Amino acid sequence: MSYKMVQYGCGPIGCSIVRLASAKPNFEFVGAIDLVNVGKNLGEIAETERDPGVLISDDPDTVLSQTKPEIVLHATSSSFEVIFDQLEGIIKKGINVVSTTEELSYPFREQTDLASSLDKLAKEYGVTVLGTGVNPGFLMDAWPLFMTGVCQDIKHIKAVRIQDASRRRIPFQKKIGAGTTTEEFNELVDSGTLRHVGIAESIGMIAAGVGWDLDKILETIEPVIAETEARSDYVTVAPGQAAGVKQIGHGLKNGEKLITLEFQAYLGAESPHDAVYIKGTPDVEVVIKGGVHGDLATAAMVVNAIPKVINAPPGFISMKDLPLVSVIPSI
Amino acid sequence: MSYKMVQYGCGPIGCSIVRLASAKPNFEFVGAIDLVNVGKNLGEIAETERDPGVLISDDPDTVLSQTKPEIVLHATSSSFEVIFDQLEGIIKKGINVVSTTEELSYPFREQTDLASSLDKLAKEYGVTVLGTGVNPGFLMDAWPLFMTGVCQDIKHIKAVRIQDASRRRIPFQKKIGAGTTTEEFNELVDSGTLRHVGIAESIGMIAAGVGWDLDKILETIEPVIAETEARSDYVTVAPGQAAGVKQIGHGLKNGEKLITLEFQAYLGAESPHDAVYIKGTPDVEVVIKGGVHGDLATAAMVVNAIPKVINAPPGFISMKDLPLVSVIPSI
Repeated sequence: MSYKMVQYGCGPIGCSIVRLASAKPNFEFVGAIDLVNVGKNLGEIAETERDPGVLISDDPDTVLSQTKPEIVLHATSSSFEVIFDQLEGIIKKGINVVSTTEELSYPFREQTDLASSLDKLAKEYGVTVLGTGVNPGFLMDAWPLFMTGVCQDIKHIKAVRIQDASRRRIPFQKKIGAGTTTEEFNELVDSGTLRHVGIAESIGMIAAGVGWDLDKILETIEPVIAETEARSDYVTVAPGQAAGVKQIGHGLKNGEKLITLEFQAYLGAESPHDAVYIKGTPDVEVVIKGGVHGDLATAAMVVNAIPKVINAPPGFISMKDLPLVSVIPSI
Repeated sequence: MSYKMVQYGCGPIGCSIVRLASAKPNFEFVGAIDLVNVGKNLGEIAETERDPGVLISDDPDTVLSQTKPEIVLHATSSSFEVIFDQLEGIIKKGINVVSTTEELSYPFREQTDLASSLDKLAKEYGVTVLGTGVNPGFLMDAWPLFMTGVCQDIKHIKAVRIQDASRRRIPFQKKIGAGTTTEEFNELVDSGTLRHVGIAESIGMIAAGVGWDLDKILETIEPVIAETEARSDYVTVAPGQAAGVKQIGHGLKNGEKLITLEFQAYLGAESPHDAVYIKGTPDVEVVIKGGVHGDLATAAMVVNAIPKVINAPPGFISMKDLPLVSVIPSI
C-alpha cells in the first residue's frame, strides 16, 4: 500500500515537507501546486534525494482531478480565511488534507462559523481535514494536553517555548523583529506582521480538551531587549535593540487564569527549551532540553500525521482528536 | 449526560479509581464487584467523598445484567490469562471495559492468540476494551511514542523511570524486594513475584507504533544494592542488601537494540524522574522532574480514558489508538 500525495504550496515549509515525505517508503508524490516555479521539477525545487518526477502546476483543479491523491499536504498561508477556498476545492474532490496553516490548528473558538462550515463540508464529502505543525499543533497544545492525562485534577496549565532564534531560518529571525528598535518593533506589531500565529488557537484546543469554557483569551507581545550585542549570520543586534519577541497568552474563566502560554524567540537565548508546568494532583513539570527544532519538527508533524488523517473518520479535526501521531522511520 | 460505571475489583487500586471517578461530575457508579467485602458499601470501603450508594457483590453476572453500565472499570490481576474469562463475561453483555491489567496494555506481541480472540469478541459485541495505567499505559510506551511525533526519523528510543520507593505504598516496597539479601532477591525473581509487569508489552506498543518488526525482546532483573542504610516507614535496608529493583528491557531487530526501557524502583533513589531519550532527527530529550506518582496517576489514566473508550470504535485497542487522553477536571 502506498499513500498518493499532492503538495499544495512549495515555499520553504512546503519544500521541507516534500523532502521528508519523498524519503519515506510507500509515500508517493503524484502532483504539486504553486504559483511560482510553475513547470519546474518538484524534486529540483525541493532538493529531494529521490526525484518524485512531478512538475509544479498553478492549476489545482486539473492537478487534483487528474492525479486523484489520497491526501493533499497544504502549506500556503497562516490565515484560515485566506485558505478556505483552497481547502473547499480540495475537499469537494473527496481528498483528505493536512495543512500547516497555523489558524487551522484549532479555529473552533476564534473562527467558529468558518470552522463549522469546514467541518460540515468535510463530513459531506467524507474526508478528514487537519491543521498541524510543531507549534501550533504540538508543543503548546497537544503535548501539554497529553501530559495532563496523568493528573487526577488540574488547576492551571502553562506551556513555555524559549528558542534561540540565531539557529533558525533568516525569514524567522526577520519575522521576530531581531535588530529593530523598540519603535520599529511596535510598528511591526501594530501592522500585524510580527506575531507568532497560533497562541489563541492552542489555548482553545487545551480548553476544549479539558472541558473548560473560557470567558476570554488575552495576548501580549513585547520585544526582548538585548542587554549585550547579539549576533547571527543574518543580523547584529546592538544593546537596547530588540533581539526578538516575547508573546504571552492567557485563557481566563471567571477572571482566573487557567491556561498560560509563553512564547519567546530571540537571538542569544541562553537556555532554549520547551516546557509544560501543570498545577494539579499531582503537579507535573516536563522539560524538553534544548527545545524542539521548529523547522525540522513542523515537516515531521505533517508527514507523521498522514496515515492517521487518512484513517480518521470524516470531519475537520484537531490534534487532540487523532490517535497518537508518532514517527514514521525512513527504513 | 452521565457515564454509568461498575467497579470490578475493589482492592487498593480499584478503590483509588472509585475515589477519583466518584468525584467527577456526571460519573455515576451503579454497581461494584469483588470477592471480599461482599455486601458492604462501596463508598465506605473506598472512602469516597460522595457515597455512590452501591453495595459490593461477588456475582458479576447479576450486577452487570441489572445495572447495565456503559463501562466497567476493571482492576483484579496483572495477568491477561487470569482475567480473560472476566472480560469475556463483561463483553458478552455489550459493556465497554477499561482495565489496569498490566499485560492487557499491549499483548498483541506477547500473547497474540489471546489478544486476537479478545479483539474479535469485542468487535462482535460492539464494545471497546482498553488496558491502561501510568506504566504500562503511559510513561514507557504511549508517552515515548507520542514524543517521536516531532522527529523526521528515528534510530533508537529509550525510556527511563527511576522511582524513590520510600514514597510508595508498602505493598509496592515489598514487591520490589526492599530489604532482602541478594539470595532472597534472586529467589523472588525466580519465583516470578518480583517483577514489574509490562516491560515487554510497552516495548511491543512502541514497536507497533513506529512500525518496527522486532526479532526479540530481552529482559534483565537485578537488585539495586544499598551502599548506605536506607529507610522507609516499612523497612530498613542495611548496606549490602537490596534497596529495590533495576529492570531493563531491550527490543531488538537484526541484533540491534532499537528500544530500551529502564525501570528502577528503590528506597532512597536520589533523583527520581521519568525520561525519554530519542536518537533521531532531531534528537529529543524529555524529563519529568521528580517523576510521576504511580498510585495517583494509574487511577487518573483509567478515569481520564473513560469518555475516549466509550466513544472509540469497537475492538480491543491500546493507548496508541485512542485520541489524546487528558485530565477531566473535578469542577
